[in-house]
Amino acid sequence: MPTVYITAPPDAADSLAETLVDKRLAACVNRLSTTSTYRWDGEIHHDDEAVLLAKTTDDAYDDLVDCVKREHPYDVPCIERFDEADVLESFAEWRAESVE
Amino acid sequence: MPTVYITAPPDAADSLAETLVDKRLAACVNRLSTTSTYRWDGEIHHDDEAVLLAKTTDDAYDDLVDCVKREHPYDVPCIERFDEADVLESFAEWRAESVE
Amino acid sequence: MPTVYITAPPDAADSLAETLVDKRLAACVNRLSTTSTYRWDGEIHHDDEAVLLAKTTDDAYDDLVDCVKREHPYDVPCIERFDEADVLESFAEWRAESVE
Repeated sequence: MPTVYITAPPDAADSLAETLVDKRLAACVNRLSTTSTYRWDGEIHHDDEAVLLAKTTDDAYDDLVDCVKREHPYDVPCIERFDEADVLESFAEWRAESVE
Repeated sequence: MPTVYITAPPDAADSLAETLVDKRLAACVNRLSTTSTYRWDGEIHHDDEAVLLAKTTDDAYDDLVDCVKREHPYDVPCIERFDEADVLESFAEWRAESVE
Repeated sequence: MPTVYITAPPDAADSLAETLVDKRLAACVNRLSTTSTYRWDGEIHHDDEAVLLAKTTDDAYDDLVDCVKREHPYDVPCIERFDEADVLESFAEWRAESVE
């Protein structure tokens, strides 16, 4: 089952997490505070951001990515998929039921 | 080597992390603060939680999962395994020695 | 594309993140605050640390690891590689261009 790693500006992160759960594209989203260091236009920047870890299913993954692209304030958002090697059975069942 | 992704309520997270290290089921546990957004009984909830990232070994993984299921306050805890594609050799050795 | 999971003491984490981006070994680094629980010399310790998640490329991975080993204050740092199963195309392109 995919965990989707998304970064977003702090003021957009809560609404993005809520949208993904509300639209049943993720069973749950863990939001963590981060400072991002990156290069843009030749300069190094440090920005406060949020990391969203969205717990979803194989079937819902493509729709989740489409939703993030549509709702995200960045033109080039960080959206990456990580697949777990194992998951507690009862948690996997809850997750599948929570995502339509 | 597995990294086990566990979420827990803040007041249970420290004791869970300490138990896993004390019982030599994990070499180390990184605890991060998170806000979790999820649907339960048809309502969307936002809870403060902790993400625990437990660094363990193939051999200890099953016992670690059993311990988390036993100690965790939730009936359906998030317990997921992620395997790294590479790891610094000396860190892997320390990790294997720290876990019996 | 690899995400490299590194832990570091808080006072070394910013400079490590900046070095990786400045040397074009990572396109961006997400820094998260953590409390680490681990056993060292038979005692259980709890330390404030940072988790750095460095977004890099296959080609730059080895040089990034060498750089972290050289710059890191620990003899045995946690350096682990996680490969994503999928990534947004435009983000992957930006990442490849940002890393020489």
